[in-house]
Amino acid sequence: MALRVGVVGGGQLARMMIAPAVELGVELRVLAEEPGMAASLAATAVGDYRDADTVLAFARDVDVLTFDHEHVPQDVLSALVDAGVAVRPGPEALRHAQDKIVMRTRLAQLGMPQPDWAAVSSPDGLQDFLDAHGGRAVVKTPRGGYDGKGVRVVGAATEADDWFAALAEDARGGALLVEELVDFSRELAQQVARRPSGQMRAYPVVETVQRGGVCAEVIAPAPHASERCMELAAQIGVTIAQGLDVTGMLAVELFETTDERILVNELAMRPHNSGHWSQDGAVTGQFEQHLRAVLDLPLGDPSPHAPWSVMVNILGGPAEDSLDDRFAAAMTEHPSAKVHTYGKAPRPGRKVGHVNVSGDDLDDVAYEARAAASFFGD
Amino acid sequence: MALRVGVVGGGQLARMMIAPAVELGVELRVLAEEPGMAASLAATAVGDYRDADTVLAFARDVDVLTFDHEHVPQDVLSALVDAGVAVRPGPEALRHAQDKIVMRTRLAQLGMPQPDWAAVSSPDGLQDFLDAHGGRAVVKTPRGGYDGKGVRVVGAATEADDWFAALAEDARGGALLVEELVDFSRELAQQVARRPSGQMRAYPVVETVQRGGVCAEVIAPAPHASERCMELAAQIGVTIAQGLDVTGMLAVELFETTDERILVNELAMRPHNSGHWSQDGAVTGQFEQHLRAVLDLPLGDPSPHAPWSVMVNILGGPAEDSLDDRFAAAMTEHPSAKVHTYGKAPRPGRKVGHVNVSGDDLDDVAYEARAAASFFGD
Repeated sequence: MALRVGVVGGGQLARMMIAPAVELGVELRVLAEEPGMAASLAATAVGDYRDADTVLAFARDVDVLTFDHEHVPQDVLSALVDAGVAVRPGPEALRHAQDKIVMRTRLAQLGMPQPDWAAVSSPDGLQDFLDAHGGRAVVKTPRGGYDGKGVRVVGAATEADDWFAALAEDARGGALLVEELVDFSRELAQQVARRPSGQMRAYPVVETVQRGGVCAEVIAPAPHASERCMELAAQIGVTIAQGLDVTGMLAVELFETTDERILVNELAMRPHNSGHWSQDGAVTGQFEQHLRAVLDLPLGDPSPHAPWSVMVNILGGPAEDSLDDRFAAAMTEHPSAKVHTYGKAPRPGRKVGHVNVSGDDLDDVAYEARAAASFFGD
Repeated sequence: MALRVGVVGGGQLARMMIAPAVELGVELRVLAEEPGMAASLAATAVGDYRDADTVLAFARDVDVLTFDHEHVPQDVLSALVDAGVAVRPGPEALRHAQDKIVMRTRLAQLGMPQPDWAAVSSPDGLQDFLDAHGGRAVVKTPRGGYDGKGVRVVGAATEADDWFAALAEDARGGALLVEELVDFSRELAQQVARRPSGQMRAYPVVETVQRGGVCAEVIAPAPHASERCMELAAQIGVTIAQGLDVTGMLAVELFETTDERILVNELAMRPHNSGHWSQDGAVTGQFEQHLRAVLDLPLGDPSPHAPWSVMVNILGGPAEDSLDDRFAAAMTEHPSAKVHTYGKAPRPGRKVGHVNVSGDDLDDVAYEARAAASFFGD
């Protein structure tokens, strides 16, 4: 009898679990938000992940429940655990991905290097932080932000007035997170897989290139990374995975500073855009590794099988342009490019796929990946 | 709108098209022989592929129809073509995979190197062939044989009496194929992908190791193959793909003789066991390449991304043994092994999965692949 994994959320991360599930002989079931989503091939249910009864009914027949995103509310997660469902990652771990103040507090306890930060519940508190940090800082809403949403660089406390007003309306109350504006030279990401029984495997640290607050490109491994940087990043990933009891894939987004420090920026407790390169560039891709980890199966080898891999996201152009039309042209010019599509209607700025290229020479690999992806760009 | 590929047959070859279909954004539809088959995730219909109405109804909404096997009868194929369905490979090409005498006749016309052969319709004819070839030969039923079935080494014409008797009963009449017993040093296989518009890509020639008439192991590329051997094999593959107007993947099974000749043994016009290594060991795996070829999309790079890949088939043990139980043990000991399962109930001698390993050192790679597969063996 095949093991059954339920995935809450029908987006591209769930979609990309389908291929390794077929290979491993795992039966994948997906609770999609609506019909026709990226993971619709495996969608066995459609419903609202914020409704406990819906998720409980979906989870009844699965061996393990995991996620396409971290937005399932804590009361729903608790109801699942109470009903005996194996929820991976569990509610306690997910709290750190759902609330950035909870995350910062816990990382401080673990001694993880991070930007200076504070939880501020009033413009006065924010102004104090600004005054102490050169007049500029990053303000974040603790909950609900992703891909640059809920993040704002401010030079005066008044620039967050609307968010403070929203806080006052929010029954959960709370505070905004303010962080030091880090003088970083580049952004890195460290992925670690962890099983409930404790086994962990770290992927090589990668460089992520953001444009407009959205991940545009990933280079694996991070070029010119020193031995010390690689070890430190892996150590940070392993410490957080263990310290927060993460199961499945963990991604730690990092800043590398001009003075050679590494600081934790964000966490994601699921397969992550920074790990898409591993689908074609590593012995065990992150989607297979996530399934193995949440099922508590032995983890696979995360080693790259080429010196360099580059992943370039495809952001959807105008809706009248079909992805298919550009596909043949990209395939003709770039036979070594691995194009992954998400089955999503193109829309400006929307991630609708990505391209992976691996090889011996970084310049060649990056050129091929960018050129292939450019066929699809806006 | 996604391109739609219909696959007749719900076995493991159809199953292994699912992963690349998801990546390419192709909608895969499968006509399975019965519920619960290997490709059931993509099965949109269940029915008899020998029934023209069933296949026509299935093919109505697809852009291209292709196959998990070569057994769809010619009258059904003709009805599809008459109805305007894009059938790839087409009926004319498939005739050569369905009838070994038709295949031998055509290969002779193309000047392809092959064993001495004859179509014999009586024991006397067979005895003449035996007398001219040292008293021993291989007799094959022209239709319906695979994996060693319908193949018999004989030392006397009487040893094929039952097959001649069956011929006499068969309304289609015809003859048996008799072939010289080739003194081969090893078996090779050459794969070529071909698009309807003519583009072709040859994979490196591989060595196949058979046990009990069934493929047990594949080494890619074939060890110690000379430049001349590799070029000749690729040339044979390309000539046959073109000469027989094959579309999709073609596999040419070859004998390498002790006197360094290469002779064509069998053909398969679909993804083939000899190409499973390419799923994890080549830039473009054969299942992705087959989809690209039948859709007339530009073909991908067939280059290996490691010096060596070894594929070892998993033959199912006694039915009471579950594949899952052995999975964790294999994964623990062999984290670099890629295990592919077919979702089939284990049965002695039945192919239920395979293991791929790639790397720099052939001895290490072969050891890992065999050791990982041995967890699943009978």
